[in-house]
Parts: sequence; C-alpha cells; structure tokens
Amino acid sequence: MQIAVIGCGAMGGLYSAYLSQENNVTVIDTNKKTIAAIQNDGIEVMEPDGTTATYHPNAATTTEGMDPVDLVIIFVKSTTTKRALHDDANLIGPNTYLLTLQNGGGHEKVLSEFVQRDHIIVGTTQHNAARNGDGKVRHGGSGLTVIGPLGFDVEALAPVVETFNSCGIETRADRDVQRLIWNKLFTNVSASALTALFQMPLGYIVDNPNAWTLCERLIREAVKVAAAAGYTFEVNEKINEVRNVCEASPQGVTSIQSDIAAGRRTEVDTITGFVVDTAYTLGVSVPCHWFVRNAVHAFEGRGAFGLDTK
Amino acid sequence: MQIAVIGCGAMGGLYSAYLSQENNVTVIDTNKKTIAAIQNDGIEVMEPDGTTATYHPNAATTTEGMDPVDLVIIFVKSTTTKRALHDDANLIGPNTYLLTLQNGGGHEKVLSEFVQRDHIIVGTTQHNAARNGDGKVRHGGSGLTVIGPLGFDVEALAPVVETFNSCGIETRADRDVQRLIWNKLFTNVSASALTALFQMPLGYIVDNPNAWTLCERLIREAVKVAAAAGYTFEVNEKINEVRNVCEASPQGVTSIQSDIAAGRRTEVDTITGFVVDTAYTLGVSVPCHWFVRNAVHAFEGRGAFGLDTK
Repeated sequence: MQIAVIGCGAMGGLYSAYLSQENNVTVIDTNKKTIAAIQNDGIEVMEPDGTTATYHPNAATTTEGMDPVDLVIIFVKSTTTKRALHDDANLIGPNTYLLTLQNGGGHEKVLSEFVQRDHIIVGTTQHNAARNGDGKVRHGGSGLTVIGPLGFDVEALAPVVETFNSCGIETRADRDVQRLIWNKLFTNVSASALTALFQMPLGYIVDNPNAWTLCERLIREAVKVAAAAGYTFEVNEKINEVRNVCEASPQGVTSIQSDIAAGRRTEVDTITGFVVDTAYTLGVSVPCHWFVRNAVHAFEGRGAFGLDTK
Repeated sequence: MQIAVIGCGAMGGLYSAYLSQENNVTVIDTNKKTIAAIQNDGIEVMEPDGTTATYHPNAATTTEGMDPVDLVIIFVKSTTTKRALHDDANLIGPNTYLLTLQNGGGHEKVLSEFVQRDHIIVGTTQHNAARNGDGKVRHGGSGLTVIGPLGFDVEALAPVVETFNSCGIETRADRDVQRLIWNKLFTNVSASALTALFQMPLGYIVDNPNAWTLCERLIREAVKVAAAAGYTFEVNEKINEVRNVCEASPQGVTSIQSDIAAGRRTEVDTITGFVVDTAYTLGVSVPCHWFVRNAVHAFEGRGAFGLDTK
C-alpha cells in the first residue's frame, strides 16, 4: 500500500516506522532536522522493554513531485490539519483515503474539505509515544487502534486493517468508532482542560474540591451531549474513570497545559470545542464547556505563561 | 454618636478620620503597628489635591472592656467579617446598628447572626482610598454614600445620615439601596473576576475577544438575576459601562487579581458568590458565575501565583 503520514511527532514517527515494514511509506514534516535524520538514519523506536529497532520509511519536507497515495494518515496537531492538507494536496487523488487518529473529535469537518465523506476514516489509538530526539521515538505503551468509516461500509476498511495488524499495530474496524472517540474524550475535556486553566498537574484537579467540582460538572455536560448524539454512557462510571486517571498520574502535565505555559495555540477547538459544537448542533446546553473553550483561548492570547502578567 | 469602625484599611481609616470630627469614634484593627501609629500620631488623610489633615479617633487592637456603641461600621475584608464581629461582640448591644459598606452583596447574611434584621444597615460608597503607610490614607476620590435599612423604616437612619454629612461624607438614605449595590456589582462580577482568572489587567479583558465574550456573558447572567430580584437594568448599558471601566484603566489591577497572585483568600463569595446564591434562591441559571466562583477558589487553593506550577 502507498501510505503517506503527515506529521512526524512521536505518534507519526511510530506509525510510519511500523507501517514501513510492509508498505511504501513516506513521512512528511516541515521540520528539516527531523526529516534529515530519518533520511540518514531511519526512525529508531525504543520499545517499553528498552529494546530498539530502526525502520526506514521515506521522509520528505514537501510533497512536491509526489503522486497520490492510497492512504494519508494525519498526525499533525489539529490546529494545523487544514494548512498541512492544503500544502500536501497532491497526495490526494480520487481513490485516496484520509485517516485521522488525532486526539479529540470533529476532525472530519476539516477532512471533508479535501475528500468526499466516503473517503474519510476516523479512528482512535491507545498507543502512546514520546519524541526521543530527531528521528527517535520512545514507545510508551501499546493498545488497540480502532478505525471507522464515515458514510461508507466498514468492510471497505479491510485492507487497511489487515496491513496495520500485520505491521504490529493491533487494529479493528468498527462502524461505531464515534462511541470510542467520545469515550476517550471525557478525560480530555474535563481534567485535562482544567490543568490548562489552573496550570496545575492532574493530581491537583482531583485533590482540590473546587477544581474537582468543576471537573465533575464538565463530565456531566459531556455525557449529556454524547447521549444526545446517540452514545449513552453511565455518568458515575465516567467520573470514576477520570478520577482514576488523575490519581494514577498526580504529577501528570497534559499537552494542553504545556501549550498554555509555553504560549502556544492549543487543540482546544477539537477537544472541548468538539463538545461545544456538537452540543450546539443537537440543542444541548453546555455552558461550562463553552466557558472553558473561551477561557483557554483567552489564555492563549496572553502569550507565554506569566510573561504579560504585569 | 458612639461609633466603632472595625477594620482600618484605607476605607476604614478614611471613615474613622472623617467621622471623628463630630463623634466618639474608635477604630479597631488587629494590626498592632497600624493601631500604635494612630494612637501616637492620629490618622493622616492626604486629599486628592495633595493637602493633608490629621484626625484623632480612638484606636485599639481589641474591644476588651469597651461598652456597646450606637453604630458599628464594618470595613474588614468580607472573608473575616464573621470572625471580626465574633471577636468584637461586646460592641454590640440591643440598640446597636451594624452598617456594612463592604464591596459586593449579601453581607447582611453574616450580620444577621449578630443583630436583628431591624438593626442592619447596608450601603455602598463611591469614595476610594489607598493605604499610605500605617495610619496614613491617600484619598483617591469622593462620591455619594448611600445607606439603606434592612426591614425597618428609612427615616430611622436620619441621625446616621446627618452626622455622616456634617463630617464631610455626602450621604443619603435610600430604601432601594440594593439596586445601587447591584449596579456597582456588574463590573466586579465580570471584568474584575476575569482579571483574577487570567492574571491580566482590565485592558486585557476588553482587548482579548475571548475574554470579552466571557465578560459579556457574565454581565448578561448577572442582569438576569438582578431582574429576578426586582432590579431591572438595561443589559447593553451595563455592558458599555463595564467596557468603559476597562478602557479607562487598561493597566488596572483589581484586588481579587492581587489576592490570587499573592495566594490570599479572595472576596469572591460576596461578589460572584452573591450572584450565584441569589440566582439559586430565585431559580435563575448562572452557570458561568458558578464556574467563576469555583475557579477562583481553585486558584486560591493553588497558593501564591506560580509557586506550585513547576
């Protein structure tokens, strides 16, 4: 299969490396140092047990001169999805599928500006990874990857599922993938979002009674929206899951928290914003998510943390 | 008139000084340095035009041995009102009136634990002042003081109004004082509250589109509660007023913002909390004020600004 992976952060690197075992993979990133390192030395993946292996996908900073591929996997930060697909549009032909495994939800909105809905695949992954330098990935843990079609039959995904599995990425297709996306979302839109506001690690959200009150309220609102969208979750179960995540990583610093601290744009529009937009479409009231989305954007506007506080 | 002023911050100092011209005034504060300075040198008030005058109220760190007075004026931070009245309870006899001129609303709830409702006076002042050292006050500007009775006739306030006016504090009694308290509240519960969250000055609230969106929403919710309480305000007029306040003092740092920055408890429960509590009583929904109150408390729990953020 001809595969292009757009975005060579930790997850893009991991998937490029694994999939290159049985496919013709090209990984695209605008970071010249990263691409040069991969061109020279490949991608080195350090597994959780400490063993390392090196993989050799193609790597490029631009898609100039490239032909359309069978599958484009998008792993850029959601704030740059549109820009990246625009720049790399020559990868997309009439038969090209676009797959997003990005965090949050609603990515199909941007993807549908580039391909028909029957060529969009959305998914969620339980793998986690961290960058270990240019062309180096530390694989934190494995898990199931679930992908689902948007407006076409799930059987059409068989070739993708097959090559993912044979490359060591445990994968199944599920027409109900949106349910899994919601399921993964609850922590991100509650505890993680609050770490950004308070600039405190996950443990603080569960330890401080007022922060936890807000966290519970955010989970309740999100569960209500999911239900309106057709995905029923037991609210107390979700609250307990989020509590467990916070208690398991009390010092855990989330990506949205780091983004605010560094004065970067966050992915809030595809995390909290997905809840707000879906709620609006379905006529559900989510004032606290609405507040959080605006507040996170207001923090972004402030620049690097503490820099402009006088 | 026998008057005790509890709390010798800038405003407590100013009122003690002025009222001592025609009354037997004792100012109470737990700060020994401040009280010693007043006992030795009186209270020096620097007027807006730069002239100074010195006044000589009595001053004490404790009310031990003191008899009940005619009027107790409370000028402590609202977080310590209860504690202060408890400690100074021997000032209160069957004929003692309690007057609060503190910021925000709902102070009568605490006051009614110490006197009957027909001895509670609530009010609002347009004076502003800053501490200029121990026993020294810089008077920033004058304006009307309006006081109103809680559950008794406004005419009964005539002696208080009279002595306030003859001491240079322009004062009138108004049975509708709650309307003025609401009117003063809109800025505090919107723009000021947001300066605490974002740790940015007033100008940022009006300049950043997301912060301003939140600010407008907070004003709209508060106007709805005021209307339910019987005080109708034109919402766009209030929005423009708050905008003007922000634009007039773009570098303005609010007291709630400073409290959060310093890791102190804030007065949020009698500012934003007054809106939330009133809304709850009247069955009005104010999710954004509810969010802000919890968020400010969560910030308080974090300690001094930036201290625990790694």
